[in-house]
Amino acid sequence: MSEPKFLDELKFDANGLIPVVIQDANTGEVLTVAYMNRDAVRLTFETGKTWFWRRRHQKLMMKGEHSGRVQVVKEILVDCDADALVVKVEQVGGAACHEGYPSCFFRKVTRTANWRFSSNESLTRTRSTAKKVAGDERL
Amino acid sequence: MSEPKFLDELKFDANGLIPVVIQDANTGEVLTVAYMNRDAVRLTFETGKTWFWRRRHQKLMMKGEHSGRVQVVKEILVDCDADALVVKVEQVGGAACHEGYPSCFFRKVTRTANWRFSSNESLTRTRSTAKKVAGDERL
Repeated sequence: MSEPKFLDELKFDANGLIPVVIQDANTGEVLTVAYMNRDAVRLTFETGKTWFWRRRHQKLMMKGEHSGRVQVVKEILVDCDADALVVKVEQVGGAACHEGYPSCFFRKVTRTANWRFSSNESLTRTRSTAKKVAGDERL
Repeated sequence: MSEPKFLDELKFDANGLIPVVIQDANTGEVLTVAYMNRDAVRLTFETGKTWFWRRRHQKLMMKGEHSGRVQVVKEILVDCDADALVVKVEQVGGAACHEGYPSCFFRKVTRTANWRFSSNESLTRTRSTAKKVAGDERL
């Protein structure tokens, strides 16, 4: 089996990686930002599950490999410069984040009435994603 | 005026950058993936418009500086590792992409009935974003 042709159109960075936005196919919520190398993109395309290059582990892993919280691929989008991807998924098990939250983006910068001069703001939990999903928090 | 405290919680990469997903605050569509340095995050927070570190130009620029297509910030989200941001915006002028498309992600990997073994797929325009917005295509 030959490699999918679109792989040759993608621009990987100096480390051989491309940033990938994982988006919930139903709600549009951004679940996580992760990195794929060429093999991870190919495997994501071929298996219909997301694969990432885990920079911390320096290892290619299927999301949900241990936790069962796999991501079923619905669509793969490529940007104008072909150096970033959006992968729309259905998240199995409700939690994309290894900390047990539905989305990794569970914190937001607090805003006041005016964005200007709000110099003492810090991070707070977002309402929509503040509820942890119980269970296994491994990848 | 002191710097916003949350800046100290963010993790910038070896080049001093953090990847940022720009998302349409109304539709949830991912408009672009770009990079901010510390100053760009601070300016985005303080001015309520998006600022990016343009890697190609090696320069800090406000989005829409030349084209008028500014992005009005509605919300800034931070991920679990504090090494990626989602900024929800209202896109002025209808086009986020410098090529004149509403979203930079105007191409998708064609899928067949089954993701597996579709080795000869290439990129096609997405239906939703295939229509260019007329006018100035500068940043």
